[in-house]
Amino acid sequence: MAYVTWSLETLERFCKDVFTTFGFSVEESAQISDVLLTADLFGIESHGMQRMVRYHKGIEKGQIHLDAQPEVVFETPISATIDGHSAMGQLVSVFAMKKAIEKAKTCGIGIVTVRESNHYGIAGYYAKMASDQGLIGFSCTNSEAIMVPTFARQAMIGSNPIAVAVPADPVPFLFDASTTVVTRGKLEMYNKMGKPLPEGWALDENGVPCSEAPRVLSNIVGKNGGGIMPLGGSSETLGSHKGYGWGMVAELFSSILSQGVTSNECCTFEGRTGICHGFAAIDPAAFGDPDAIREHFSEYLKELRCAPLADGATRIYTHGEKEVLAQEHRRKNGVPVNDGTMVELLDLCDYLKLDFASYFPGYEPPAEFAGFAGNY
Amino acid sequence: MAYVTWSLETLERFCKDVFTTFGFSVEESAQISDVLLTADLFGIESHGMQRMVRYHKGIEKGQIHLDAQPEVVFETPISATIDGHSAMGQLVSVFAMKKAIEKAKTCGIGIVTVRESNHYGIAGYYAKMASDQGLIGFSCTNSEAIMVPTFARQAMIGSNPIAVAVPADPVPFLFDASTTVVTRGKLEMYNKMGKPLPEGWALDENGVPCSEAPRVLSNIVGKNGGGIMPLGGSSETLGSHKGYGWGMVAELFSSILSQGVTSNECCTFEGRTGICHGFAAIDPAAFGDPDAIREHFSEYLKELRCAPLADGATRIYTHGEKEVLAQEHRRKNGVPVNDGTMVELLDLCDYLKLDFASYFPGYEPPAEFAGFAGNY
Repeated sequence: MAYVTWSLETLERFCKDVFTTFGFSVEESAQISDVLLTADLFGIESHGMQRMVRYHKGIEKGQIHLDAQPEVVFETPISATIDGHSAMGQLVSVFAMKKAIEKAKTCGIGIVTVRESNHYGIAGYYAKMASDQGLIGFSCTNSEAIMVPTFARQAMIGSNPIAVAVPADPVPFLFDASTTVVTRGKLEMYNKMGKPLPEGWALDENGVPCSEAPRVLSNIVGKNGGGIMPLGGSSETLGSHKGYGWGMVAELFSSILSQGVTSNECCTFEGRTGICHGFAAIDPAAFGDPDAIREHFSEYLKELRCAPLADGATRIYTHGEKEVLAQEHRRKNGVPVNDGTMVELLDLCDYLKLDFASYFPGYEPPAEFAGFAGNY
Repeated sequence: MAYVTWSLETLERFCKDVFTTFGFSVEESAQISDVLLTADLFGIESHGMQRMVRYHKGIEKGQIHLDAQPEVVFETPISATIDGHSAMGQLVSVFAMKKAIEKAKTCGIGIVTVRESNHYGIAGYYAKMASDQGLIGFSCTNSEAIMVPTFARQAMIGSNPIAVAVPADPVPFLFDASTTVVTRGKLEMYNKMGKPLPEGWALDENGVPCSEAPRVLSNIVGKNGGGIMPLGGSSETLGSHKGYGWGMVAELFSSILSQGVTSNECCTFEGRTGICHGFAAIDPAAFGDPDAIREHFSEYLKELRCAPLADGATRIYTHGEKEVLAQEHRRKNGVPVNDGTMVELLDLCDYLKLDFASYFPGYEPPAEFAGFAGNY
């Protein structure tokens, strides 16, 4: 698949216009755009511009309620439960994470659980909101079931990512990972390339390991069974029960504490997805001198980066370094967007009566995509 | 390796006598014994009676300070930092977890970070202390470096288990897992059996995957490089960076917040190990009606257990079920202890001048162990 590169400013202008045209306020549109474009800047293409189509569909189908506002339904000085009322996931989540941060600044910790929201983009965005302010941040979400628990043949848990962000120098620690071995986006990439799936990724409709991407994906869409393995694979030998356990931890802070919809039922309703999130912020000052803690952590991260390399390896990364490097590069050199996504944006402009060429002058979709326009 | 089965009462009497003979009070000895024997009851043999020899060695070498008492060095209503002063890990940890629980009952949450402790046994024991009281419990620890970070050739992180316990019916959720793909104990088992290690477990001194247990183990002992892979293996394809990230999360709550010794330096000193822990308790009542939350979670766990089975599978477990089943069985039928461990207990009796036969009447070590007695 070919890529075309656009400046961050171009993509920002486009995204904001799309969301204001959908009916969001200027401020809301800027917020949603920032979450999406942070994913693209971090190099997490699957969660950036490529997701515009999902949000468009969500709004069209009435799963995302444009005018809804999140509501605090239960609260203590250290905690809150929020009903998202099916508002845009990014807006509900920024609201919730701000509340967690506010509580952490007052009490040392804030934990916020959210029900009835929608897809929220990259988990790391919200965790990083806390670390940008010198706090430790957490974020997790449930999602449409895709993870097959150990010994099962049916997906019962979402990809359920968990993110942890911790202030450090020269770059913060930012760990953001699905609790499945990979995400569905990776399967789709292999499918597009016509390549067999690596061993240890997916299961067929009988719960048996399977490397055929088209079969696994069509089973997922048709809810015929099968799906993606937990981190650790499909047997206890490599720790399948551990990825399954981490998926459950994400479920706990999102759907369980909020008494919301669990992954096995997310996205099975009309007019709502039911997706739930969890957020937390912790002030390191609750444990001692925050500067000393930050320095201690930064020193350990440095030791990790400077550890002896494996044969054939060129660099040891600490979590979040790759994102910082990608961000620096893309701010300077632009953000690559693949042709498939460009065609979706073209369609989106048609739908919203926006002038595609005014954002992306001179872009022509390659011939292979001719049939797709208007049909995504 | 052959096993001999003893009643829980026999092992309890033995353990308590061992620890009082070492110089612990009756109450302290009962506490330490309970942590060890809970591991055996749960079927986690590696962390039960088999570990007696490690504690004996720790006391002998002066790493475990018999008379030391944990000290709270920093405290807020929701948090505390504890210096363990190299006391017995189990005693420091029960003290710390009780503090977390007390804070959770008052404020909704308590987080306690601990530095300068010692090996604490199974992580799940402390998390379960909270769930036994209707709270959500967490526990983690760092340990001597054994995990090789992605792209490195040297162990820099411990096996760093994390445990999460949540009240539920009919059995609580108890997830207790190292963040490495397996623990060192598993490698030792394969070594004893003369079997090659499964692919995806260990790395040699060059950071290259290796199935030779003797080579990996001697490299670990000699600190020549290599070690165990993070959960997810040694490459990003199967999520190596994710296990590595979870290991870092355990490090954060143990050695980082407490400003203690990080895994790469644990157990490298004279007269102390420097091992650190983290504990937390959360009251579900901070998010809504705790009974409704418990019921909602129990329902989801039931749905997981009742999901369609993979071909060839006989049962889907939720985390903690196996431990409850093992416990019921062993309370009724006794606890199996392997001959290797029995020989160690024989030696321990020699050392402490305890009458082995008064605890384990009629036991004779098999001929193959003749040379080991007195030499462990």
